[in-house]
Amino acid sequence: MSDPVRACLIIIGNEILSGRTHDKNLPYLAEELNTLGVRLAETRVIPDIEQTIINTVNECRDAFDYVFTTGGIGPTHDDITSECVAKAFGVPIELNADAHALLKSHYENPEDLNAARLRMAHVPVGAELIDNPISKAPGFRMENVYVMAGVPMIMQAMFQGIKHQLVGGRPMVSRSVGGYIPEGTIAKVLGEIQGDFPNTDIGSYPFLREGKLGTTLVVRGENADEVNQASERIRTTITDQGRDVIEDTGEVSA
Amino acid sequence: MSDPVRACLIIIGNEILSGRTHDKNLPYLAEELNTLGVRLAETRVIPDIEQTIINTVNECRDAFDYVFTTGGIGPTHDDITSECVAKAFGVPIELNADAHALLKSHYENPEDLNAARLRMAHVPVGAELIDNPISKAPGFRMENVYVMAGVPMIMQAMFQGIKHQLVGGRPMVSRSVGGYIPEGTIAKVLGEIQGDFPNTDIGSYPFLREGKLGTTLVVRGENADEVNQASERIRTTITDQGRDVIEDTGEVSA
Repeated sequence: MSDPVRACLIIIGNEILSGRTHDKNLPYLAEELNTLGVRLAETRVIPDIEQTIINTVNECRDAFDYVFTTGGIGPTHDDITSECVAKAFGVPIELNADAHALLKSHYENPEDLNAARLRMAHVPVGAELIDNPISKAPGFRMENVYVMAGVPMIMQAMFQGIKHQLVGGRPMVSRSVGGYIPEGTIAKVLGEIQGDFPNTDIGSYPFLREGKLGTTLVVRGENADEVNQASERIRTTITDQGRDVIEDTGEVSA
Repeated sequence: MSDPVRACLIIIGNEILSGRTHDKNLPYLAEELNTLGVRLAETRVIPDIEQTIINTVNECRDAFDYVFTTGGIGPTHDDITSECVAKAFGVPIELNADAHALLKSHYENPEDLNAARLRMAHVPVGAELIDNPISKAPGFRMENVYVMAGVPMIMQAMFQGIKHQLVGGRPMVSRSVGGYIPEGTIAKVLGEIQGDFPNTDIGSYPFLREGKLGTTLVVRGENADEVNQASERIRTTITDQGRDVIEDTGEVSA
């Protein structure tokens, strides 16, 4: 298995940590990155606190190939991500001419582009803008750090605009096989199968459906042959025990 | 404002980072902790990798008053949380007699309590068990680290069994006021209100409903008077601009 290309997502916002807003960006990013051969290796959810944002950005940009942040780039006092990323990189924040022009064209009435909204045109010196086709106020990239909006629709549009820049390894493929077999019953053989296919990653997810205990086994890996061989061993294990296989996705690209 | 009691949640599991499973434990824990006066100050989502789990547990148990982990305590090869927490604390893992008895009573047929399932009765030396009224296999506490299941129903039942142990500060109260006013229009005054009520935390969440832009403002704080005063200022700001207030929760305990 080649060295995986690893990414970290930093979700910035008190509203996620208070439980008020349920994050939708992690699963979206995870699946998109996977198709590019980039592994989402860690996610951090942090509050709108300057020093926490600065420290987390600096720690993660050293530790991961790519860092994505979501949240905190709007017009209000609690939107401090851009200033914090500038401080993390040790550069000032400036009014970006291109971002300014974008916002000017978005607000027909010039007085609507007030000081608060103008904050959204300020990015760290050296940043490259990330297009926001929905509400214009751009995200930006500083080296390996991609700063995006928190609103899922906007975050997704921004990601679609930058994903061609990302250089990944081989994408993972996966196959899920599920049956009415309790996790503890299949665990031993599963460990043996995992041992025989060390380049795959076999996950085991118990479920309770119609009052019956079952388990879904998900095999992931870069090599489709290995994923399929391990999955067939799992299928056989389930049926050899006289249990029904109730789900088999076949090989899929995720 | 008193020094807040701060907690960190560590979500352990490749299935969350792959996007396959959507975490439900963060919002549950956030809301429950808040009623106890404990602030969820950070969350990390990490993979089933031994060194990552050990490092993250050690970093977080030093940095936060309480640490909660979810996931990785089942019977299969990818359930490595208990061993990793033992290593983080530098103690061996052992078969816990009480946990063993619980599992024995759960499986009517002795041969169902196989080696894989018996792993779920192994906890670090010195751990205190956390009751699992649903499927018996317990969680455990080591000092300020609470190790719980990932399945939300079981995690919630475990948390209900330990929450009396947690010592928090004053719970936060909050009030949400929303209206059809764009975020950028209210931003300036909002910053002033935040400045006048520095002990509150005012969050601004834009929305698009029936084709109209609006913003929900959430004021949180330990002091209900301050939360209400700041909220009234926000109400007045919205109505003074000739906009309708379409939502006002009044003071609530979250």
